[in-house]
Amino acid sequence: MIKARVTVTLKNGVLDPQGKAIEGSLGALGFAGVDSVRQGKVFDLSINGDDAKAAEKSIAQMCEKLLANTVIENYAVEILG
Amino acid sequence: MIKARVTVTLKNGVLDPQGKAIEGSLGALGFAGVDSVRQGKVFDLSINGDDAKAAEKSIAQMCEKLLANTVIENYAVEILG
Repeated sequence: MIKARVTVTLKNGVLDPQGKAIEGSLGALGFAGVDSVRQGKVFDLSINGDDAKAAEKSIAQMCEKLLANTVIENYAVEILG
Repeated sequence: MIKARVTVTLKNGVLDPQGKAIEGSLGALGFAGVDSVRQGKVFDLSINGDDAKAAEKSIAQMCEKLLANTVIENYAVEILG
């Protein structure tokens, strides 16, 4: 079994209203000094098999097809073992 | 300026219908061998100042108060520099 983590974040320049809202809320809660907040997604995958290279390739395809919107989002795949 | 990443994931045992839906979609798209998917959130924060220790402490408080629901979620703070 291979465990992997996919992190999907908005590309630079893409507006993030959710992050802005969190930034505002942190300010309202009294946290000073927060310059910016951007929100993304994380997916923890368990893949059957032991071939990490093949799993990484397969996960990249999953990102292209489903997990990320590559027009506005970047993704990073990390094999945890 | 200190950059930090907060990763919020569901605790073990907490149902994740969104992850299950993604798992089903991946199967429908022809990706075999996906054992499980769990979805979480990631927050990229920029904090003013240069004190990494203080920033980490402050971010942990942000997680407790706003970013994570500690009843059902775990959080991890990573200082990126």
